[in-house]
Amino acid sequence: MEVRNRYVTLKHQLDEDQEPKESDFELKDSIISLEASTKSSSNNNNYVLVQNLYVSIDPYQINRMKKQSSSHKAINFSFALSPGQVIDAYGVGRVVASTNPGFEKDDLVAGLVGWEDYSLVQGEFMLSFLRKIDNTTELPLSHQVGILGLSGLTAYGGFYNVGRPKKGDKVFVSAASGSVGNLVGQYAKLLGCYVVGSAGTKQKVDMLKDKLGFDEAFNYKEESDLTSTLQKYFPDGIDIYFDNVGSETLEAAVSNMNMFGRVVACGVISEYTDGKKRAAPNMIDVIYKRITIQGFLTPDHMKDFAEFTTVTSDYLKHGKMHALEDISVGIESIPSAFVGIFRGKNIGKKMVQIVEN
Amino acid sequence: MEVRNRYVTLKHQLDEDQEPKESDFELKDSIISLEASTKSSSNNNNYVLVQNLYVSIDPYQINRMKKQSSSHKAINFSFALSPGQVIDAYGVGRVVASTNPGFEKDDLVAGLVGWEDYSLVQGEFMLSFLRKIDNTTELPLSHQVGILGLSGLTAYGGFYNVGRPKKGDKVFVSAASGSVGNLVGQYAKLLGCYVVGSAGTKQKVDMLKDKLGFDEAFNYKEESDLTSTLQKYFPDGIDIYFDNVGSETLEAAVSNMNMFGRVVACGVISEYTDGKKRAAPNMIDVIYKRITIQGFLTPDHMKDFAEFTTVTSDYLKHGKMHALEDISVGIESIPSAFVGIFRGKNIGKKMVQIVEN
Repeated sequence: MEVRNRYVTLKHQLDEDQEPKESDFELKDSIISLEASTKSSSNNNNYVLVQNLYVSIDPYQINRMKKQSSSHKAINFSFALSPGQVIDAYGVGRVVASTNPGFEKDDLVAGLVGWEDYSLVQGEFMLSFLRKIDNTTELPLSHQVGILGLSGLTAYGGFYNVGRPKKGDKVFVSAASGSVGNLVGQYAKLLGCYVVGSAGTKQKVDMLKDKLGFDEAFNYKEESDLTSTLQKYFPDGIDIYFDNVGSETLEAAVSNMNMFGRVVACGVISEYTDGKKRAAPNMIDVIYKRITIQGFLTPDHMKDFAEFTTVTSDYLKHGKMHALEDISVGIESIPSAFVGIFRGKNIGKKMVQIVEN
Repeated sequence: MEVRNRYVTLKHQLDEDQEPKESDFELKDSIISLEASTKSSSNNNNYVLVQNLYVSIDPYQINRMKKQSSSHKAINFSFALSPGQVIDAYGVGRVVASTNPGFEKDDLVAGLVGWEDYSLVQGEFMLSFLRKIDNTTELPLSHQVGILGLSGLTAYGGFYNVGRPKKGDKVFVSAASGSVGNLVGQYAKLLGCYVVGSAGTKQKVDMLKDKLGFDEAFNYKEESDLTSTLQKYFPDGIDIYFDNVGSETLEAAVSNMNMFGRVVACGVISEYTDGKKRAAPNMIDVIYKRITIQGFLTPDHMKDFAEFTTVTSDYLKHGKMHALEDISVGIESIPSAFVGIFRGKNIGKKMVQIVEN
């Protein structure tokens, strides 16, 4: 069996401080031949061929696309991407063929696939990320990519495990209309926290307040002094700052934090494409207010995946949470979808639907 | 009863980015009258009058001497010092008079006293810090100010509770010949860690290696690229960085840290007198390597005081730890002792002996 496979790849690695452009990517063609690949592979006969339906578009991918500096080479789990290579990414698809006893044809699955039509998932490591999706759920399949997928787990694990929140905590979320931020705000509201979000357009700000029930939200582009802005929205200080952007927002949050405040360092999108924008939080504040700044990655919280999906599905079914999705259609839209994230174009979870399901 | 009391005080508050000078201080005179103060005070008859023998000289005091910015006003437990006021500080003394049932004349005590000849310790809060010193110990009284006092507890609580070390961890300590740093290195060696310290003179570096058994030590003033320097001394990365200095040293440590590394934020002496020297650690490293940067203050670890003194006294009696003390004599030497800390003049715990004991 063979399938023709189109995939999005890098033309060249990106410079350290470069914003991505559509022309950095190209769409290529290959043939996936099950016979050839199982013969050549040490994984022998253990594979699942998936036709991808939705693939996730995430800002962290840019860190894999850059020329690797010596410091980043040390981060060896953030597998660097080479030009020409398939870009692996989280997604949802339908099984076309399988020799693995855990999967059969037509199963719906979620896992690490790629920015491509078909993904041949092989090897214990990659197969360990693949899981069957319950066909009977009334929730849209796209939810499995965002709110019930890795973005959801990022928000859940980061907020609960790293943020260690309690009812009444004052929570600030940046990039609050993004794939992770909007969920952190929703979890925080459901726990009984006071929640303020920052975003980059009036439309996003309104949506946070009107649709997601944030207590307050503001457009950071309209604020000249973020420290004063946060002082206004947090007269009693910030207990948890869920950081998706870094730089001056992180600095302003630290200077407004309460004793024993927690900074959940999830992402620093403003620093990904501008190394000069590094945050310099006041360490005197960090010491005297006993602040903890803690980085985390989603795989650290895989042990909570079952709990997270149960809780979150339940919230969704009872209308207590909203899934914000921003879906482009067609594999050729992947480069513009990815580039758009760095320009604040998306509202909620950005994904690309490869084919109709 | 009255005593004549000389005390060191500020002439004026310091500017944000000013190094302290001897001329910022003056020696003043007052009379402590027990009759007058017990009559006027709401604390009534509950006081201990202490003749101070040794007082502690600590860099953190500078943060209390500065004009308070709005951000620092928020740190309300770091009681700001006003010109003319007695500067309270940790120290050791002998009870001259007491109405408190816990203390009697000639008891040796340690606690919050002041940069002065005599301290009248009154009020439940201040009295709660006062404790009797075991007269029978063969250890010098000065040890109670440093290695067995708050400097010791800072090293012990910070290293064990915040750093969460285990045998074999790679530990980097800055200002490693300072009052806290030298003890952190010694605790780390006793636990079986690999320990490297930085200091500012050849004499200090030699002392760390030859006398305290650090695995390595270097003079940061002779290094042009601290990131490469640390890479050389830590080919397997840093697990714990005990930060006493901040700025570029913190940045270099973060870029050399291992997965799940811990930065114990104890002090940032290089930032106390130069706000422009703020550290901008690479947040991408913090996230991908799941680094925790955690500030702490010594009083957070008071619950471990008994354990800490037992363990540390035992190490001292068995020659497993060394007390490094740098003692100036006479109350009038307090300003130069304090100023000297910011110029790297001290080796080990800086203190002033007010009178012979």
